[in-house]
Parts: sequence; structure tokens; C-alpha cells
Amino acid sequence: MTPEQAVERLRAAGLAASAAETVVAHLVEADDAGKHGHGMTRIPWLEGLLEEERDPSARPERIERTEGFERWHGRGALGHLTLAAICDALAADPPDRARLVVAESCFPTGVLGSWARRIAEIGLVAVVTATSPRRLPHPSGGPPLTGTNPIAIAVPSSDGRPFVADVSMGAVTHGDVLAGRARPDELVPFGGPQAHKAFALAAGLELLVGALAGPEPGAVVLATRPGFDPVPGFRDLAGGRRLPGDSGRRRG
Amino acid sequence: MTPEQAVERLRAAGLAASAAETVVAHLVEADDAGKHGHGMTRIPWLEGLLEEERDPSARPERIERTEGFERWHGRGALGHLTLAAICDALAADPPDRARLVVAESCFPTGVLGSWARRIAEIGLVAVVTATSPRRLPHPSGGPPLTGTNPIAIAVPSSDGRPFVADVSMGAVTHGDVLAGRARPDELVPFGGPQAHKAFALAAGLELLVGALAGPEPGAVVLATRPGFDPVPGFRDLAGGRRLPGDSGRRRG
Repeated sequence: MTPEQAVERLRAAGLAASAAETVVAHLVEADDAGKHGHGMTRIPWLEGLLEEERDPSARPERIERTEGFERWHGRGALGHLTLAAICDALAADPPDRARLVVAESCFPTGVLGSWARRIAEIGLVAVVTATSPRRLPHPSGGPPLTGTNPIAIAVPSSDGRPFVADVSMGAVTHGDVLAGRARPDELVPFGGPQAHKAFALAAGLELLVGALAGPEPGAVVLATRPGFDPVPGFRDLAGGRRLPGDSGRRRG
Repeated sequence: MTPEQAVERLRAAGLAASAAETVVAHLVEADDAGKHGHGMTRIPWLEGLLEEERDPSARPERIERTEGFERWHGRGALGHLTLAAICDALAADPPDRARLVVAESCFPTGVLGSWARRIAEIGLVAVVTATSPRRLPHPSGGPPLTGTNPIAIAVPSSDGRPFVADVSMGAVTHGDVLAGRARPDELVPFGGPQAHKAFALAAGLELLVGALAGPEPGAVVLATRPGFDPVPGFRDLAGGRRLPGDSGRRRG
């Protein structure tokens, strides 16, 4: 499927042209990063969401705004559109020092590292996390308690190559399960014998986002102005080793 | 060693009485939580730090302050004192919505979960992270690139039992190595075959703190007011399973 065809399909599902282009640009970026589970293969799933759960005509709304804090509500729009609007707002009016942005009803969110990278590209350190349907159980078993709850951290660099980490707490992705690349019982916190650590992170992010954004899947973005430039020195220290977010990166 | 004896030893190392009591209260709390590597066994190590590297008479200083952002500098004090001062300042004047607090020159920081819990006990959601000397290599080998870089997330609860996750990115702790409970080559990012995930988190936190707090080990605290109360429902869903931060907890 070409990007143009993908835009056409999302427009046929009810999205306005600019919204469809925003979503497809994100899918193309995911494919370019090798994250095909979040790429163009998602079009049929997004069409289903727009038909059954999300509102194609909805627009995210900023419902609270101070220098250091904003609250947004997705109003039923695809989460990509809420995160894109948050990134645009940060670019248009960046914080002097730091701003926490809470997004209620923000699902799906796509590849968090892409949003974090956009924020780093305007010169801000970014932390982006989001909840999603509960899929990960406690390491001792039982029902799913948390989403895969990724967190992305992006740090600008004077060498023009931001550092971008993007880590999901699942040993495999839900997309892997849907595509038959992993068994459902493999969708557990990562870490094997130390899965209690990834579970603690997943639960912490679940409750952090839940306490700020409420019971629906949501997102939290922290954007802050760096005072130092640690990335080039870190790359030097790492020698030629591939760092998170470098091109040819694998999924974190 | 009793807490009184520990206070005496730190006073003999040059700390003022109130500072010694603050540090020892933190060590006692670590022991109570079963985190003995951060407990009273650290007294000789702290005495050495106060003799060689940290300044017993130093007091942390708040050097920048707005509603949504503060910057502190340890001025050579033990990091415990800087984090205790930050917690006290948050309790005295909590943010309306959110505040990011950056602490330069903040080492050692002890058990981050204890600081996060203190902030949750005043009704705020807390995220606390800190850097420490580089000890973890890239999963493919090479020199140490990051500290063990723990992150703690604490969320208040209407049932009076805050949720507290506290996760270090190392498979073992530096304390385990010092105590002979682990080999130096076991001090790597946790996760075994998925250690690239813990490394990405460790590197992300290294560069996040480095970009905000500079080249010395530092700390970053986010404190924000919850709008929702997700912890009781999460406990219900988990049934009787032990959650991070519950008493009898093991190290995350």
C-alpha cells in the first residue's frame, strides 16, 4: 500500500484529509524505523477503530493550560492526532523550563519514540508514556493487569542526532501475537527471571498515567529544556556500538 | 549498630546533628524495607565519602524556582540531604498541578522509592530518578556506559497505601558486588536476552538526568497532583498478589 492509498482509505473511513495525512506520516515513520507492527499494516485495524470505537470527526481539545502544565482530551479522536497536536503546541509555544502534558482518552498512540523524537527535534528533552488495554499479567500469573505501557525518552544533541529510547514492558508485542509471531502466553513482562522489574515499571506507568489521565488509556508527555549536552560524549564513550534510536535500530 | 550509634558516627565524620538524623532515618527505612545494601551497612562507606569527596558542612541550595520548575545544587552535601530538602520543600509548598525538580550534584541518593513514597504521602504522584557512577556496559560489551540508574514511581491511594515501584536497571546491585554476593561481570543491564531494553532505559535516564543536571551524578523529581485514584481498583484486580512497594517487598 502506498502512503497515498493509505490516506485514501482513512479518508474513506471518515477522517479529514489533514488528519489522515498526519496518521499516515506516523505509520510511514514507523515502517522506516523497522517497526512494521506499528506501520502501514495497521490500516485495517485503524479502519475498524474508526468504525466501532473512535470518532473520525473528533478533534482533540486542550482543556487546561498553564506554563508548566497542560491537559488535553482526545474527545474520541485517534490518539495519534492528540499526540500530534501536543507536539505542534509544544513547537509553537515551548516551555521556558518544563511542561507536563496530560492527555485523557488518547488511544492508540503508535510509536512513542516518534513523538519523543519530534519534541527533541525542537530542542527539548522529552519523556512520553502511555497506557493501552491491559495485556500483561503479574509475574506470578493471573489476569492481565497492565498495558505494555511503553516509555520513550529523547534527548537533543548538538551533533544533530537526538538519542531516542523507546521501551515496551512486554517480552513481545501485542502486534507479534496478532501476527502469529508470538504465542499469547509470551505476552508477559520482559526479563525472564527478573520480570518483576519490568512488571514494576509497567504497573508504575499504568498507575502514573491512570492517576493523571483517568481510566481510559491515556498519555503523559514531559518536555523540558536541557541545560547540558551529554549525547555526543555518550556516543564517544560507546565507541561504534549502536545506541537506542540510531538508524537501523531494533525495537527497544 | 543502633540508629543512635549511627548518628554519632556521622556526627563524628562532620555532619550536623539534624543532617546526621536525616541520613540515618533514611538508612533505617531502607533496612525496614529489606534493602540492606542501602541501610545501616552503608555507614563506613558514607564516612569515607564525607572524608574524601563530599563536604560534611555543605547544605543543598535551591538556585532557581518557579511554580512548575525548580533547580537545586547539592553544593557537595550528601545526596540524601538534597532529596530530603526537596521533599520538605514540596510538602511546604506543593505544586498546584506539576513541578519538575532538577538536582545537580546529588549523590548518593539512597533508596529512591523512599523519597517517592514521601512525596506520595503528601498526596502527589512522584517520579524520582538519579544517575550514579557508570557501572553498566552496553549489552554487546565494552566499558561501563551508565549508572544502575533507578527510577521510582509512587502513586497516592485513597486506601492509605501508596503504590511505590523502585526499579534499578542492573541485574544485580553494586552493593551485591561489594558484598561478594555477585560477580562484577554480573553487573549488567537486567533482562538476559532482552537486556537491550533495560540498557535503553538506563541510557535514556542517564542522558535525561545528564541533560538537565549536568555531568556529575544528579537527580530529577517530578511531582504532580493526581486527578484520579487508580490504586485501590488495581489492588482489587491483582487479587492477593504482592505489588511493588507493599510491605515485605523485594527489591525491584
